[in-house]
Amino acid sequence: MITLYTWTTPNGRKPTIMLEELGIAYTIKTVNIQKDEQFAPEFLAISPNNKIPAIVDDEAEGGPMSLFESAAILIYLAEKHQRFLAPSGPQRYKALEWLSWQIGGLGPMLGQLGFFEVSSKEKSALASKRYREESERLLNVMEKQLSSSPYLAGDAYSIADIAAYPWVVAAGDRLKAVLGDKLAASPALQAWLTRVGERPAVQRGMALPKV
Amino acid sequence: MITLYTWTTPNGRKPTIMLEELGIAYTIKTVNIQKDEQFAPEFLAISPNNKIPAIVDDEAEGGPMSLFESAAILIYLAEKHQRFLAPSGPQRYKALEWLSWQIGGLGPMLGQLGFFEVSSKEKSALASKRYREESERLLNVMEKQLSSSPYLAGDAYSIADIAAYPWVVAAGDRLKAVLGDKLAASPALQAWLTRVGERPAVQRGMALPKV
Ligand SMILES: N[C@@H](CCC(=O)N[C@@H](CS)C(=O)NCC(=O)O)C(=O)O
Ligand SMILES: N[C@@H](CCC(=O)N[C@@H](CS)C(=O)NCC(=O)O)C(=O)O
Repeated sequence: MITLYTWTTPNGRKPTIMLEELGIAYTIKTVNIQKDEQFAPEFLAISPNNKIPAIVDDEAEGGPMSLFESAAILIYLAEKHQRFLAPSGPQRYKALEWLSWQIGGLGPMLGQLGFFEVSSKEKSALASKRYREESERLLNVMEKQLSSSPYLAGDAYSIADIAAYPWVVAAGDRLKAVLGDKLAASPALQAWLTRVGERPAVQRGMALPKV
Repeated sequence: MITLYTWTTPNGRKPTIMLEELGIAYTIKTVNIQKDEQFAPEFLAISPNNKIPAIVDDEAEGGPMSLFESAAILIYLAEKHQRFLAPSGPQRYKALEWLSWQIGGLGPMLGQLGFFEVSSKEKSALASKRYREESERLLNVMEKQLSSSPYLAGDAYSIADIAAYPWVVAAGDRLKAVLGDKLAASPALQAWLTRVGERPAVQRGMALPKV
């Protein structure tokens, strides 16, 4: 069985959505990052980068395996269950391309914007401007992509959509004051939010972990 | 044949190293990001996120395929040529884990530090502190990992090392004033830099693109 270590954040909800989509049995262990539980030695043994999400699969090929980094977890689960990532061909690499774009671009940049706009008491006009512009640029890129295909990687819902969805929801929620107008002016992104958000597994995954 | 669109930056040198390691024929087209060439319509058609690196493989399965995002390019080339990424099992997922860690953590955070410490004329003490601390934390995570195995994903050199190497070199070069002491105090990281840097393909890849 899979044990998922997670919290109620965008990165933490990528694997809950994926596991709900797969419909497999799994256990959640919450790691409260507001209480620094990610620095507990037991958790660091699984996730040495002190971040959620992480999984342990005690039935992995070759014995129990732990894995951190949301993208690696999504690829692992997709390949194990042969879903949401084509085994070969352009569909596969377009999904990995937009998954990489999410974890290397959209996620980190919205994360920095959240720090300077919301979390930090001290402010920096320079940093706020940088991350607002970069977030808007990335949302434009996404809007353009979704204007030509229903899902990020093309016609099929994939792990790229699973990775991006909780981040775009957070952009319209925690970062609404900064990005609300941009999101409202992005019809293809709105349609995608509806399309993905209507999936029952996405709704269940977004309501987890229960805390 | 593969056409690689790239520039003389850490992300731009991941695919040059990989292609040199594979020893396959490829063509380089330079995209001078200091001259905004990444915004040319012909390049945006390949890389809608206006960033290098990107490739076009005109002999891909199912017809010519373009691909952006360094991690997707590395996985594509690794799977096509069955090298530097195990086809299954824990070795595969540990390589994808550390590859994801590089593109989602080490790369973006060193990138932000470079912006606030080097590129930007205007400064922010808050942002400089944030990215210095985060970069040092990430180098600590890497030092710890490399204290227990010769390569990031274990005993075998993989696309995770190919992704991290040009970034750690840049940390000791462009960011030497900030991170030089931390790097000097990281013996496992130094040994890894030597181990990876001794590979002829890495040396050739680091000297590209010629401009
Ligand atoms: N690149 C990582 C990022 C994970 C991440 O940033 N996790 C945050 C919560 S969303 C965290 O655990 N932060 C706690 C900390 O950094 O100490 C991934 O995609 O899994
Ligand atoms: N996540 C991307 C990042 C690529 C990236 O940041 N490329 C930089 C150069 S190292 C670039 O092209 N910058 C030009 C721009 O942003 O306009 C990847 O791993 O490929």
